[in-house]
Amino acid sequence: MYKDIDTADRQFFLTLLATEHVMNDAESLAHYAHDYTEDLHFEPQLVLRPESVEQVQNIMAYCHQHHIAVTPRAAGTGLSGGALPVHGGILLSVERMNRIIEIDENNLQATIEPGVINQVLRNEVESKGLFYPPDPASKGSCMMGGNVAENSGGPKAVKYGVTKDYILNLEVVLPTGELIWTGANVLKNSTGYNLTQLFVGSEGTLGIITKIVVRLIPLPKHDLLMLVPFASAEKACEAVAAVFKAGITPSAMEFMERDAIDFTMKYIQTSMVIKDHIKAHLLIEVDGNYEDVLMQDCEKISEIMYAFDCDDVLFAQSSAEKANLWKLRRSVGEAVKSHSIYKEEDTVVPRAHLPVLLRGVKSIGEKYGFKSVCYGHAGDGNLHVNIIKDNLSDEEWNKKLPLGIREIFELCVSLRGTISGEHGIGYVQKSYMDIAFNKIEIELQKNIKTVFDPHHILNPGKMFL
Amino acid sequence: MYKDIDTADRQFFLTLLATEHVMNDAESLAHYAHDYTEDLHFEPQLVLRPESVEQVQNIMAYCHQHHIAVTPRAAGTGLSGGALPVHGGILLSVERMNRIIEIDENNLQATIEPGVINQVLRNEVESKGLFYPPDPASKGSCMMGGNVAENSGGPKAVKYGVTKDYILNLEVVLPTGELIWTGANVLKNSTGYNLTQLFVGSEGTLGIITKIVVRLIPLPKHDLLMLVPFASAEKACEAVAAVFKAGITPSAMEFMERDAIDFTMKYIQTSMVIKDHIKAHLLIEVDGNYEDVLMQDCEKISEIMYAFDCDDVLFAQSSAEKANLWKLRRSVGEAVKSHSIYKEEDTVVPRAHLPVLLRGVKSIGEKYGFKSVCYGHAGDGNLHVNIIKDNLSDEEWNKKLPLGIREIFELCVSLRGTISGEHGIGYVQKSYMDIAFNKIEIELQKNIKTVFDPHHILNPGKMFL
Repeated sequence: MYKDIDTADRQFFLTLLATEHVMNDAESLAHYAHDYTEDLHFEPQLVLRPESVEQVQNIMAYCHQHHIAVTPRAAGTGLSGGALPVHGGILLSVERMNRIIEIDENNLQATIEPGVINQVLRNEVESKGLFYPPDPASKGSCMMGGNVAENSGGPKAVKYGVTKDYILNLEVVLPTGELIWTGANVLKNSTGYNLTQLFVGSEGTLGIITKIVVRLIPLPKHDLLMLVPFASAEKACEAVAAVFKAGITPSAMEFMERDAIDFTMKYIQTSMVIKDHIKAHLLIEVDGNYEDVLMQDCEKISEIMYAFDCDDVLFAQSSAEKANLWKLRRSVGEAVKSHSIYKEEDTVVPRAHLPVLLRGVKSIGEKYGFKSVCYGHAGDGNLHVNIIKDNLSDEEWNKKLPLGIREIFELCVSLRGTISGEHGIGYVQKSYMDIAFNKIEIELQKNIKTVFDPHHILNPGKMFL
Repeated sequence: MYKDIDTADRQFFLTLLATEHVMNDAESLAHYAHDYTEDLHFEPQLVLRPESVEQVQNIMAYCHQHHIAVTPRAAGTGLSGGALPVHGGILLSVERMNRIIEIDENNLQATIEPGVINQVLRNEVESKGLFYPPDPASKGSCMMGGNVAENSGGPKAVKYGVTKDYILNLEVVLPTGELIWTGANVLKNSTGYNLTQLFVGSEGTLGIITKIVVRLIPLPKHDLLMLVPFASAEKACEAVAAVFKAGITPSAMEFMERDAIDFTMKYIQTSMVIKDHIKAHLLIEVDGNYEDVLMQDCEKISEIMYAFDCDDVLFAQSSAEKANLWKLRRSVGEAVKSHSIYKEEDTVVPRAHLPVLLRGVKSIGEKYGFKSVCYGHAGDGNLHVNIIKDNLSDEEWNKKLPLGIREIFELCVSLRGTISGEHGIGYVQKSYMDIAFNKIEIELQKNIKTVFDPHHILNPGKMFL
């Protein structure tokens, strides 16, 4: 289907890149064979690490001409296998394209390359009093090219929106090697089709993003963090929608089941006293420029929480306490992964339907005999469901898991939600796309893919192909 | 190119719709021959007014099969000729599809039909303490289908974003008659290509929007409005970026040149004392839930304004004063239109470049001998440039205008801006698309069009076709 890479191909790439960036040694191939998705492993035939747009253009033009599969990759921290070279071929890493080209303080914008680490960008702009809100759990290592490709979210999304809400314009190398800009560096744009948003979340299937213009906002001056324990996980979920209905928009509204916290405390070797009857927590942050206003918001939130039968509301008293709570929340995914073979689902529904979703996930689990650890961005209705293998046999796991996942996703869609809120479809969810889209809708997307990538060489085997 | 409509076609449509909604009388054809764009006039051959999705599907399937041109239209208040049936054929009006299907107070969402008037939606949700921010000048008459098609903005966009930021999901009848939903009713979505945002701003060229799911937010409880006079229009523009840089995001930040106010006071027959040396005003609104915080923001804004040599800052003292100032601002477009033959441009640049844009517009005007009245959404860098004919001869006007507009747009793009911020390209700006996009970028858009509309029957003659 795709051309195997031979010596002549490698020689061509060596005319573009220094030897150390044209890699086919066993160690490199093994390194680029996986991302953070479960324990999946697909080796590329060759790894290329360009540092300029022109190099990317030359690579793509050659691969287009010779029908060579190319899988783009930024940091490889994705959770849906988007960066796995499932058809072998070239692994094109943008990790060396990591310059912050400009931070425009007058226009509250920055222009960066795709290999810039999310946290590096946040630190740079924060030093100028500015804020780039999207903050995936992997923000310390994930790169902005991957964030754009997957339309990454994070806890701040509930108030500030996801990656798509901060992308103004993109420079993209098409699979043919041609170069385009998708839009303009402006906040309002009614000029042609929204190519920018077509690329955001397209998971590296339409082109290689080589420059990103992001919108920045003023950095809020204060934040307050509260942890709210509940004896009932469902009550915790019910309390979420009530806060927004009362007119308050927290800057984070995270949900953690008891198991999520127990696994994580063990994993990061921290301890916290949690009463036996507590089954779930909400971690709620508010931010803004006026601390007294935040105090008032917190009081209102507390009132709402108590109305849903929470236990004693705890306020983080120091930066260190805040950091500890956030570390706990951000480590849940890794902690569950270290506990058992697992499968992570990224369900999302309108937020008031969370209790129905949670109840459904548990009852589907009982039906098929698997346990799940649920946590995530409750304020957005985005519930991560980590299904754990524990002592299920391989046969049971392989047979029952896809059936259970399918039922969970069908429940999401019946609630007018969908199958991925922020992780993407990539390789591991593509067999469920028929739940989210009918045949016509899938066909439209395939045809759009063909417009951009007529030979289907870019990131093959992903999303719906 | 397109099939003329004959008696057999009309007979078919009469099997779908009652006689009064299959219109070809002279008065109806004349009524639907224009929108708010200059004095342009293109008669359709037949007007159809369906009220159900099934009727729209049957109409489109028939027109697709018979290669009949179809121009969709909501309220017809557009300023770029998007709803003009420039190739004749069918004018498909969605004005009767005007139900608010659901306001979901638990999830802060509403599901509506495309014929719902913007102000009707705002009133309905406001009565429940909710807010739909996008507020085009024509909000009292424009319809939501048109707002989505043009990605409409308005003064509130500077804080709250434009139409695209509030559209969660769309039901669309494709040009083939097939029905799709573009996404899900969720705040976060990384499932497939963003078809929703491909439709927002696509100006009725990809499909007929039949249902719209909008995101709502809590209604802010208070607002304050200030009017700031400047002796220098450029100084006024310079002051704009300084406010955002200081960390304040007003809920409106509008710019009006002296002429804009003078024309408008005459047009709406109101008066206001403006000192002779004043050349421009900024109209600045802040909103939120805490009035004392808003007072503090206003004080800071005033300080910034005085640092840019403004005259005495005026605060609106009552709801009536606020309403009068907003009426003045919203009537500028109509006032200029009533003054002279004119051409309205919808330029947009990164906001700190506004002074450069304004200076450029004036100097290009001098070069070609035309005057312009500038006003608009300064906080977004979105400057409406109304070029007025006054006593230019028809020959001069027709010859020089396109040259001048081209230079203005080239300036916008050189400043990393673009040629339409909120009005769209439609019919009247399409000859300038080559300034905003290179050939590859245009070709991609044409090919996307073909994916959705293989026979190019829907809204022909628009954007780039």
